[in-house]
Amino acid sequence: MAVYTEVSDEELEAFIADYDIGEVISCKGVAEGVENSNYMLRTDGGDGAYFLTLYEKRVAAADLPYFIGLMEYLAGRGISCPLPVHARDGKALRTLAGRPAAIVTFLDGVSVRRPRPQHCAGLGDGLARLHLAGGGFPLRRPNGLTVPHWRPLFMHCASRADNFAAGLRAELEAELTVMENQWPANLPSGVIHADAFPDNVFFLHDRLSGFIDFYFACDDMLAYDIAICLNAWCFEADGAFNVTKARLMLTAYQAVRPLSAEEMAALPLLARGSALRFLLTRLHDWLFPVDGALVKPKDPLEYLHKLRFHRDISGPGAYGIDA
Amino acid sequence: MAVYTEVSDEELEAFIADYDIGEVISCKGVAEGVENSNYMLRTDGGDGAYFLTLYEKRVAAADLPYFIGLMEYLAGRGISCPLPVHARDGKALRTLAGRPAAIVTFLDGVSVRRPRPQHCAGLGDGLARLHLAGGGFPLRRPNGLTVPHWRPLFMHCASRADNFAAGLRAELEAELTVMENQWPANLPSGVIHADAFPDNVFFLHDRLSGFIDFYFACDDMLAYDIAICLNAWCFEADGAFNVTKARLMLTAYQAVRPLSAEEMAALPLLARGSALRFLLTRLHDWLFPVDGALVKPKDPLEYLHKLRFHRDISGPGAYGIDA
Repeated sequence: MAVYTEVSDEELEAFIADYDIGEVISCKGVAEGVENSNYMLRTDGGDGAYFLTLYEKRVAAADLPYFIGLMEYLAGRGISCPLPVHARDGKALRTLAGRPAAIVTFLDGVSVRRPRPQHCAGLGDGLARLHLAGGGFPLRRPNGLTVPHWRPLFMHCASRADNFAAGLRAELEAELTVMENQWPANLPSGVIHADAFPDNVFFLHDRLSGFIDFYFACDDMLAYDIAICLNAWCFEADGAFNVTKARLMLTAYQAVRPLSAEEMAALPLLARGSALRFLLTRLHDWLFPVDGALVKPKDPLEYLHKLRFHRDISGPGAYGIDA
Repeated sequence: MAVYTEVSDEELEAFIADYDIGEVISCKGVAEGVENSNYMLRTDGGDGAYFLTLYEKRVAAADLPYFIGLMEYLAGRGISCPLPVHARDGKALRTLAGRPAAIVTFLDGVSVRRPRPQHCAGLGDGLARLHLAGGGFPLRRPNGLTVPHWRPLFMHCASRADNFAAGLRAELEAELTVMENQWPANLPSGVIHADAFPDNVFFLHDRLSGFIDFYFACDDMLAYDIAICLNAWCFEADGAFNVTKARLMLTAYQAVRPLSAEEMAALPLLARGSALRFLLTRLHDWLFPVDGALVKPKDPLEYLHKLRFHRDISGPGAYGIDA
């Protein structure tokens, strides 16, 4: 939730004049998106409804061609996601108020705050289609938040971890060692969304209508994307793991893209690692809040609980599937 | 800039189902509005674009029928402003997530951050039309932030005023005494917007397209509304008073509703009082920030500077008009 950059009238007008989308009839800062400044734009031409994003410093400018190119590639292969709009100079990634900026089409749909089972099924189906559609995308972006990056994050937080929760430092240290030793290397890989939390998945009439916010997308194991979603979609607010949701998500995924035996066997470890990743980044954001962020840091301990769940199960059968 | 209240999917769906506006296809928290939670709503029926407001505690629930009724009254008399939408039960003011809530039509237009002279002319014309259209509105709401309310605000801040700026306490005290002794009593009165800052006035192609945010509207002297606008629209960012803007605003106003000699003569005092009012409320918000507010308090000293300008001029001729 943030609007970091104020855009002057003249700057906005001049910026929009470079596109074939008519003139601005409304432009409102949107209270979402932690990393960037987002505006809902209505114009009297083109589709009439757009989203304008100014990329703030937390998003590396060098990665923007990957993100913009990926949305365009996926949209061209039938995935419902924001489509970058090209200006008359042919460019979709431009500059506004001194920041990299892009206009994308507005995607109808609402994110669900409390996913129900049918939403998890829709997500599983959509995620598998996204994984297939991403095949052949020519740009590369290694995951910047995977195992080798976790220990430096941990080191930064380690001295204060026990103040946050008793014994947390030792538990994180042990988990890191497990992950560094056991993280799989040869599972099927490709483009993953890497942040398909309920905020970033839209539904219309309970059917998935699209994915947004590709700013963590990268190349990694496809099953790791599923692991992220197991954590983000299948736990209830009270911490209970909802096996029905997990079963529906995984079944719908496999109806489009069946998992190999190796992927299936790796799921608990991937989910445990994914929980560790979000635990570490949340802990870091909690201990070192970003200056100017308008959003309250999220509770790291939610992910400690999830980590322990995946550590303690006997295998992927705990996700409600035959494995 | 604030979204205070999170609305659950189920609550929103049930709320919207009570209106004849179709189903929600998008709902985004808007990063504006200090007092309330605002959402841009797109639906597959009706006008398709709406604004949903949840009224937070800073807006007195008892005043809401006045605000909602006023927007409906003004819209019915040709003023472009958000039109409250009635649910099937006939009510425009309802309840969502435990708060009073209303849906209004979405008003096209953009607010200008740096008004140019033609915007000031458009505002003058529009404000005069608003004042005429408000005639006969049957509800009453006394101004809750006029002279008698200023001293209590001052008393609350007085002990810390000099820490904020040297000599401020004595200067505020002296100004208060002037206002309490000289504030006019018998000027033409009626419905005033009372907060027609550039944020709250929309333009399309540099023509005024409407007024929003009527949550300070009240009964008071019409010329006081002009005085508020002189302060909010006619000073440059560097503090200079732009007499061209003031002249255009006042000339356009008078082409619709001529000012009496008494109103004209009172303008400098009203503008000085208006500056004191915003100086006091800003100082109060600075010294006692609202818990949970996501907006940075505005600089009180901007209004000290404006106050001094109006105190030091020789008469309304300084606003560029024959007086």
